[in-house]
Amino acid sequence: MNQMKSKDAIVLLSGGLDSATTLAIANDAGFACHALSFDYGQRHRFELESAVRVAESLGAVDHRVVKIDLSATGGFGHSALTDQIALPKDRADDDEIPVTYVPARNTIFLSIALGYAEVTGAFDIFIGVNAVDYSGYPDCRPEFIDAFSKLANLATAAGVEGKGKFAIHAPLIEMTKAKIIRMGLSLGVDYSLTHSCYDPNSAGAACGHCDSCRLRLAGFAEADVSDPTNYAAN
Amino acid sequence: MNQMKSKDAIVLLSGGLDSATTLAIANDAGFACHALSFDYGQRHRFELESAVRVAESLGAVDHRVVKIDLSATGGFGHSALTDQIALPKDRADDDEIPVTYVPARNTIFLSIALGYAEVTGAFDIFIGVNAVDYSGYPDCRPEFIDAFSKLANLATAAGVEGKGKFAIHAPLIEMTKAKIIRMGLSLGVDYSLTHSCYDPNSAGAACGHCDSCRLRLAGFAEADVSDPTNYAAN
Repeated sequence: MNQMKSKDAIVLLSGGLDSATTLAIANDAGFACHALSFDYGQRHRFELESAVRVAESLGAVDHRVVKIDLSATGGFGHSALTDQIALPKDRADDDEIPVTYVPARNTIFLSIALGYAEVTGAFDIFIGVNAVDYSGYPDCRPEFIDAFSKLANLATAAGVEGKGKFAIHAPLIEMTKAKIIRMGLSLGVDYSLTHSCYDPNSAGAACGHCDSCRLRLAGFAEADVSDPTNYAAN
Repeated sequence: MNQMKSKDAIVLLSGGLDSATTLAIANDAGFACHALSFDYGQRHRFELESAVRVAESLGAVDHRVVKIDLSATGGFGHSALTDQIALPKDRADDDEIPVTYVPARNTIFLSIALGYAEVTGAFDIFIGVNAVDYSGYPDCRPEFIDAFSKLANLATAAGVEGKGKFAIHAPLIEMTKAKIIRMGLSLGVDYSLTHSCYDPNSAGAACGHCDSCRLRLAGFAEADVSDPTNYAAN
């Protein structure tokens, strides 16, 4: 798949399974990928170290980490991912939006990616959101992605001047976790580099019980491949 | 106009003439106003000092300043407002988007305001954009505001769960600068506290020649009221 990499893309990269697969897909589609991560005070800081390793292993042309300090406005709000709220373990599946929801997170991330795209001359932004195994987050749905795409073309000089048309790509949005894993493996993703757990122990071992671990475990089981994750023995 | 302030609103406040008037309008409409400013490395830092004075004088219930450091992604991009690019002086009116355009700025500001609104329990966000004397910025047009309103209701738990409907208010969007000034004066705005110049001197005196000064000067002239701004003598 060594096309000429003539088009730039911004790829949001958390260091998790989904965003790593998304980077592999964007790379395989021939984009010169600029990986973008956020340090927003998340509890699962091992994610950022994973993002560095994943960007390097999947041949991103560069990788930037933007630090966002929203402590003046209550951080990213009352979320179990940033605050001292207890993380739910072995949560029953339901339709409720869980406490790990971070207010307006993907809107803020995509907005900053949009500014970066305009500076870089890119018109393509990749985000690894998923509406199937999405834990109930509103900003992981196709309607949200469509609305942001429309906004991007109205919000920017590059969009308005017709230099190109911004596209927000969410290639995983309709995939099951098992399908994502199979796709990633076929594109050479090394999932041992990725990190999903919301609540790892101090050595970085995954808890195996938070929503994110449970989705990951179920996905590997359904894909019938072994999960290289280091889970804490408990 | 001392209604009970039962509804919270987030008001973007730069410290300039437009956002000060917007805060006065939101306050007069009965909202408990949470003023929100951004420190994004703008050259015209006197704006932030003005924002503090304006928030206080117009009775905002609080005022937060969020620091955004986007240096990892080229700052807010190549803009004369943040970089060492020469600011245009006495620029001819035309339809081009000027060098003072900051990529995706209002999208990023509104996204952070949206997160803050969700944390605060507010559904109303005020922004002082203006499509008449707007210097050609794409993210100051009604289409942009409409698109962001739609996005806000899809992006958030509060919007999706139907707890309320987010509204992005841009009360100045169709007003001339003269009309904005008359409206502000009728609501008690002290424009001597506001700051518009993109390129003030070290004492904070306005240059009188950048796009922002020229719009302000023309607005006061058209409104036939005296401009309390301290302009540098040149």
